[in-house]
Amino acid sequence: MEYSFSNRISGLQPSIIREILKASEGKGIIPFSAGNPAAETFPVEAIRSFTQAILEKDPVAALQYGLSEGYTPLRQVIRQRFAASMGPERESDSLFVVSGAQQGIELACKVLCNEGDTIICESPSFIGALNSFRSLGARLAGVPMEEDGLNLEALEHALKTEPNVKMLYLIPSFQNPTGITTSLEKRKAIYALAKEYGVMILEDNPYGELRFRGEDLPTLKSMDEDGLVIYVGSFSKILSAGLRVGFVLAPNAIMNKMVVAKQGEDVHTAMLPQLLAYKFLTEYDYDGHISLIRDVYRRKSGLMLDSIKKHFNPAITYTVPEGGLFLWCTLPKEISMIDYCKKAAAQGVAVVPGNAFLIREDEPCNAFRLNYSTPSDEQIKQGIEILAQVQ
Amino acid sequence: MEYSFSNRISGLQPSIIREILKASEGKGIIPFSAGNPAAETFPVEAIRSFTQAILEKDPVAALQYGLSEGYTPLRQVIRQRFAASMGPERESDSLFVVSGAQQGIELACKVLCNEGDTIICESPSFIGALNSFRSLGARLAGVPMEEDGLNLEALEHALKTEPNVKMLYLIPSFQNPTGITTSLEKRKAIYALAKEYGVMILEDNPYGELRFRGEDLPTLKSMDEDGLVIYVGSFSKILSAGLRVGFVLAPNAIMNKMVVAKQGEDVHTAMLPQLLAYKFLTEYDYDGHISLIRDVYRRKSGLMLDSIKKHFNPAITYTVPEGGLFLWCTLPKEISMIDYCKKAAAQGVAVVPGNAFLIREDEPCNAFRLNYSTPSDEQIKQGIEILAQVQ
Repeated sequence: MEYSFSNRISGLQPSIIREILKASEGKGIIPFSAGNPAAETFPVEAIRSFTQAILEKDPVAALQYGLSEGYTPLRQVIRQRFAASMGPERESDSLFVVSGAQQGIELACKVLCNEGDTIICESPSFIGALNSFRSLGARLAGVPMEEDGLNLEALEHALKTEPNVKMLYLIPSFQNPTGITTSLEKRKAIYALAKEYGVMILEDNPYGELRFRGEDLPTLKSMDEDGLVIYVGSFSKILSAGLRVGFVLAPNAIMNKMVVAKQGEDVHTAMLPQLLAYKFLTEYDYDGHISLIRDVYRRKSGLMLDSIKKHFNPAITYTVPEGGLFLWCTLPKEISMIDYCKKAAAQGVAVVPGNAFLIREDEPCNAFRLNYSTPSDEQIKQGIEILAQVQ
Repeated sequence: MEYSFSNRISGLQPSIIREILKASEGKGIIPFSAGNPAAETFPVEAIRSFTQAILEKDPVAALQYGLSEGYTPLRQVIRQRFAASMGPERESDSLFVVSGAQQGIELACKVLCNEGDTIICESPSFIGALNSFRSLGARLAGVPMEEDGLNLEALEHALKTEPNVKMLYLIPSFQNPTGITTSLEKRKAIYALAKEYGVMILEDNPYGELRFRGEDLPTLKSMDEDGLVIYVGSFSKILSAGLRVGFVLAPNAIMNKMVVAKQGEDVHTAMLPQLLAYKFLTEYDYDGHISLIRDVYRRKSGLMLDSIKKHFNPAITYTVPEGGLFLWCTLPKEISMIDYCKKAAAQGVAVVPGNAFLIREDEPCNAFRLNYSTPSDEQIKQGIEILAQVQ
């Protein structure tokens, strides 16, 4: 049998990032290429006792089919608990539960974009979102990132000239892969431009709680007086990545369509993880836990930045994140980035080539991504010293 | 803001079934409309102790990101444990884990069908699959069901005349909604036709383990010498529906594309439910558990059939399922099915109007679906007596 695949899927190849990651999975490799939250931040003891309590008191709720919108008490408590980031409650918005932020991203594209419609993305951006859009046949247009967020002129130009722009995809805080936080001024300007051009904003905020320096900035959702913003959040970085629980706050009409589409994807998000998230938000010291995670990431990012400062060739520039999991290094022009990454892997340090995050992987790129949440403190120090020696 | 939705989603309305179900959610309503497995069959005690063991011995595996293909030991053990239904292992096939069979169904369509391509379905068929195909813009063509499976002439006619047929979607055992099992002869004939016309078969087998009468029949996958069959299975009816763990056995090239598409939907299936399924398959009396579930459904279906025989107007015909959760009643022509369902709901018994399962809900239909897994024994007896009085 010769298989013929749909057009949307035919072009989608396992990314260069996966290949490099596979090559760097061996034991002893220092994993600056990872994107995992630090496992030591998972509240294992609490998860254990909450699970027991759930399976003793309400096993059927945990094990039987549930509503596609998610577990009702969880939906309510998320809306209350995250009021600081999502802004005041509005009658015109609804919140529902998804199987990780990834599903929220995919559903937004599924309900808003026909094949060939354009999604404007930060360039570079989160590869999981880009591939999700591609797998639905959306056209991607990249707008370059600056140190305080998107280049606004390029954004307006894209809004004016790209065909059938339906959505603007953004990670305004501690962006993956750059670690960049979009300034308040730019948040306002981006919102105004989206409104002017009648384009929805998909605001992806998986790292929002993980600020370890500076002051919180308002999300685009919190400014959303016009019903432009679909906001996606996640428990992956604060409770557990493996439980796959995220949430979406969207205008009612959009939420309704997304829920119908979600029903066709997995009926509903697994119930036991939803009940665990509910317990975590209502019976655990949530603020204390966040503060603990921030301490871990402050220490780890600080270690990495100090080592870079001390050991790296000063011609290599890098971002200084205020939160999240990543920083972004740019090599001087005369060094080939791909060669550098390959040499680093050969010497036991895995980093991700920056072009993996571009709208087209063949665009020129001289940057790479570093993660500090997965490696141990010792690995961070050692890994940066090794990288400093790579020519 | 005026929202404009993608074409694939615009036409997708919350089904008539959901509206009727909502109307019948009140307390005291007898739920013949449900599709839930009997909650008393969930091995709650085992799930509780397995969860404890997992979170004590290997919390990071349960809580950290995992592979998109699924937890490797689970993939292996599923392939071994289900060898009887899936047939001998073949080098050309791979098995991966999905977030319930629903996701396997959606991914098969996503990777094989362009918008406008045709999927041939049994008519009536499982509404969750139909909506999933619709949400990806596939065109659906229905082939009428007979008491031993599809009408073969109508199937061949559809294969010859429908445009761009990419897939044939089947539930050969204890079909939802009819309870019909496709005969061995028809299974062979359908496989041969699919091969002749070069069309993939999506074999959905969520109820396969739940045979309580008669002899097991080989699945289409077990006959699949030509790499035509994508097989979807599930733990929803034997372990827990709310944990959302299913699996797909597909030709390698197709599996690879489905995994890339899955990554864009939810990264991977929640790990704790996967580890639970693994424990269930390796440390539990799986065969004994299946036998217990079969006893429950044999008793409940027997109760319902006996009551129908005793009380129903003999002009109402019905299927006699050999397994699964459903049976299908057809009213005499002079009775309006929709009026009948409404009157039944008004008298406290919820059933699902048969047209909800048709390719087009406005086709004529005089049947309705009954579920016997969710109601109690007492509700079954009482509900059938009430239905018998509905005129």
